Amino acid sequence: MSAYTLAELASRFGLALQGDGATEIRGVGTLHGAAHGQISFLANPAYRKELAGSAASAVILRAEDAAAAPNACLISANPYADFARIATLFERLPAAAPGVHASAVVADDARIDPGASIGPLCFIGARARVAAGTVLGAGCVVGEDCSIGPGCRLAPRVTLVTRVTLGARVLIHSGAVIGADGFGFAFDQGQWVKVPQLGGVRIGDDCEIGANTTIDRGAIEDTVLEEDVRLDNQIQVGHNVVIGAHTAIAGCSAIAGSTHIGRYCLIAGGVGIAGHLTIGDRVKITAMSLVSRSLAGPGEYSSGTPLQDTRTWRRNAARFRQLDTIARRLKNLPKEQEP
Amino acid sequence: MSAYTLAELASRFGLALQGDGATEIRGVGTLHGAAHGQISFLANPAYRKELAGSAASAVILRAEDAAAAPNACLISANPYADFARIATLFERLPAAAPGVHASAVVADDARIDPGASIGPLCFIGARARVAAGTVLGAGCVVGEDCSIGPGCRLAPRVTLVTRVTLGARVLIHSGAVIGADGFGFAFDQGQWVKVPQLGGVRIGDDCEIGANTTIDRGAIEDTVLEEDVRLDNQIQVGHNVVIGAHTAIAGCSAIAGSTHIGRYCLIAGGVGIAGHLTIGDRVKITAMSLVSRSLAGPGEYSSGTPLQDTRTWRRNAARFRQLDTIARRLKNLPKEQEP
Amino acid sequence: MSAYTLAELASRFGLALQGDGATEIRGVGTLHGAAHGQISFLANPAYRKELAGSAASAVILRAEDAAAAPNACLISANPYADFARIATLFERLPAAAPGVHASAVVADDARIDPGASIGPLCFIGARARVAAGTVLGAGCVVGEDCSIGPGCRLAPRVTLVTRVTLGARVLIHSGAVIGADGFGFAFDQGQWVKVPQLGGVRIGDDCEIGANTTIDRGAIEDTVLEEDVRLDNQIQVGHNVVIGAHTAIAGCSAIAGSTHIGRYCLIAGGVGIAGHLTIGDRVKITAMSLVSRSLAGPGEYSSGTPLQDTRTWRRNAARFRQLDTIARRLKNLPKEQEP
Repeated sequence: MSAYTLAELASRFGLALQGDGATEIRGVGTLHGAAHGQISFLANPAYRKELAGSAASAVILRAEDAAAAPNACLISANPYADFARIATLFERLPAAAPGVHASAVVADDARIDPGASIGPLCFIGARARVAAGTVLGAGCVVGEDCSIGPGCRLAPRVTLVTRVTLGARVLIHSGAVIGADGFGFAFDQGQWVKVPQLGGVRIGDDCEIGANTTIDRGAIEDTVLEEDVRLDNQIQVGHNVVIGAHTAIAGCSAIAGSTHIGRYCLIAGGVGIAGHLTIGDRVKITAMSLVSRSLAGPGEYSSGTPLQDTRTWRRNAARFRQLDTIARRLKNLPKEQEP
Repeated sequence: MSAYTLAELASRFGLALQGDGATEIRGVGTLHGAAHGQISFLANPAYRKELAGSAASAVILRAEDAAAAPNACLISANPYADFARIATLFERLPAAAPGVHASAVVADDARIDPGASIGPLCFIGARARVAAGTVLGAGCVVGEDCSIGPGCRLAPRVTLVTRVTLGARVLIHSGAVIGADGFGFAFDQGQWVKVPQLGGVRIGDDCEIGANTTIDRGAIEDTVLEEDVRLDNQIQVGHNVVIGAHTAIAGCSAIAGSTHIGRYCLIAGGVGIAGHLTIGDRVKITAMSLVSRSLAGPGEYSSGTPLQDTRTWRRNAARFRQLDTIARRLKNLPKEQEP
Repeated sequence: MSAYTLAELASRFGLALQGDGATEIRGVGTLHGAAHGQISFLANPAYRKELAGSAASAVILRAEDAAAAPNACLISANPYADFARIATLFERLPAAAPGVHASAVVADDARIDPGASIGPLCFIGARARVAAGTVLGAGCVVGEDCSIGPGCRLAPRVTLVTRVTLGARVLIHSGAVIGADGFGFAFDQGQWVKVPQLGGVRIGDDCEIGANTTIDRGAIEDTVLEEDVRLDNQIQVGHNVVIGAHTAIAGCSAIAGSTHIGRYCLIAGGVGIAGHLTIGDRVKITAMSLVSRSLAGPGEYSSGTPLQDTRTWRRNAARFRQLDTIARRLKNLPKEQEP
């Protein structure tokens, strides 16, 4: 188990130290749950009240909160970000020796860098490439003509179907499927004719893709994620979608084909975005909204109705069915009085 | 194929028998679909009209329905539950001999009980443990530091990523991913800094987890399902969520990080629950509702609008955009008449 | 790389040729993106303005657009369908030699046609059958008692759990799980009793099933997809659902148990359909609608509210909570004037 003195952490991350620099840190904890030897953080003012009683040996916090710290602390302009960096020291990643596990199956013409680690029971298809420092967990499939950049990490059981290109340091979680056929059909003489999906998927540097998320490959051109895009679990990205750099999308959202999303957008969970739209930079969408038109950025958008007890909700929902009639009736009433 | 006399079933499950105890039962059927030799059940009064015409050799039903049964019957206070128990006798589970299949890959320091069955092409990682009577279908991944209790069943292609602990008799369906990274990022200097996810997932006894459902591991502390929690397919459970015992959640619902859900809740399909909320015991949520505040239990809650033909809906939806204006206008009208 | 003259294409697909039949076609492109040597198409009038500037060597289009074509063209009554057929010529599918890959595990009593191709690291369970011309990508699981018809294609990492029957030419994408347990429980004495799921799944000819889509097997009878049903990614189909021929469903929709959907329906993304309903033929449902009652077809149906900027939306949403009160108040006002 790793251990660091607080002085080491202060120096390594460029933070001011208050208190005993010899304090030994062997892990992290929440303010209320931390034990002796752990470092915690205070970023959200709502938790300020937990500071005084915390058993954490040290706390990462803003300068203005330092006076209230019961033990040592590290002063940070962005305590949550510095906590993230420090916590990484205590992460235990699966061991991954370079080389191809004996149980993996690799096509003859695939090119695996000797510095890559291909886990047990993986399959690497024809003409695929894997760069140095990349780690594939057990049971991954890297299909024909895929290319994985350096320093990527694929959790167990990730599938890159075909013509998927990953930049550097991309992290993909289990069950994700990148590069499946987009959903395209022409209707002809009473049945569907499948439109072959000839494009690929390009994922930029530092993207993260959640568990069981699906990103389809393009019909003709590519589906694209620019750099530092962060996708949570069970997101669906249709063919030919483009997602701008630094955009983050929460779980279970879905983006239909050919929509372009800008940079630095924040899209909450369960959001649906229709196809062929353009969403500007720095747009926020609240949870479970349906976006059916293009949106200029910056801005925040919502749809839906508020939660109520079911009996009250039923009465209101029934009136929604009559809303146009109600509005028309009101329009025909005598002129309103000035308030 | 198994066969039981009705008398055997009555005795085994403690039910009163009406009719010929020698009736041989070789399978189950619905009231309208059952053939000779099959047992059916009547639980929902809506199906009472199908009783008289049923070809089932026996029917499990309540005492008050017994007089109308055309053939033999078993009298039960809870016909659906007793049907469930009896139907189990006719279930054909995959054969699963104890031992590790030759094609599976098991880390040297994993501990597999000799009474466990590890299917073909499974991978068991470092320090993982699998208890007696547990069966893993083909292609499962049990990552580092996972622990599986006795009598569990993992369908083919289940992934436990890391630090996942299962109690006894847990059933997990194909494609489920338990223990992937929670979705946590700090924003710093124009880009995202990943917050490492150092916690685990703890799943209580008798839980069931649906196909392609994802349960993320905690950021610092654990994500927890208490005992007898039943999750349908494609559900997303964020990091540090706690779900109380006996709660059941239907398909495609999503629970954001750090929300606590009580015991005996019933959450319908497609529901979204925001993060950091507390939902009490015995709360029901109707389909596709968005829960954005904490809820005391018991109670039933809903959001959304009713389905209409699209033309009518469009007119009403357009008025929703003006709802505040309409309400203000109404407020300024002359006082209402008493009805 | 394949190449065809325009005359060959015209003859092969029965299309009228305008321009130089010796034009060589080596791929496809969009109107605005196509390079020399590529064929494009014009189906949607919205793109008509891109025709004149296109560098495509040929364009598939309707007779009335032919005069405006800058280069050669193929005249089609259904340009998108004919584009789909022509594009198939340029699709590069993974090589799949007949036979069972050495790393696959096949039960002794499974029957694999010598003309089928079983990819690396697949598992084929007891009594399963795979017909001629069918190709299984890497890591597929075909469980006990499954049967796959001729000419099917399973992308990597598809799971057929048990008692799944596929017709001819079925295409299933990665991560899909067909035949997992339906979600059925009886509540008894404070806990859930699992109802065993004894049915199967039957998928008709020419169906396509998207990545990470789940289709549960029936409780007693089967879950059924008739022929030419097209399901996008991350769709959930509950036990005993029946989906009529030629129906197409977009991503992330969910259909609860025992609902019957008609033929030629078009269901947009994120739609929820409650259980035990009957939806007629040729019904359309718009995105993210909740269907909680049976619907006759043909017809188009919707629910939800329109997207607004969050501040405006909040004001309107707050009024939704009072909608019944507002409507009652209006009812009590003096009679309206005639407009």
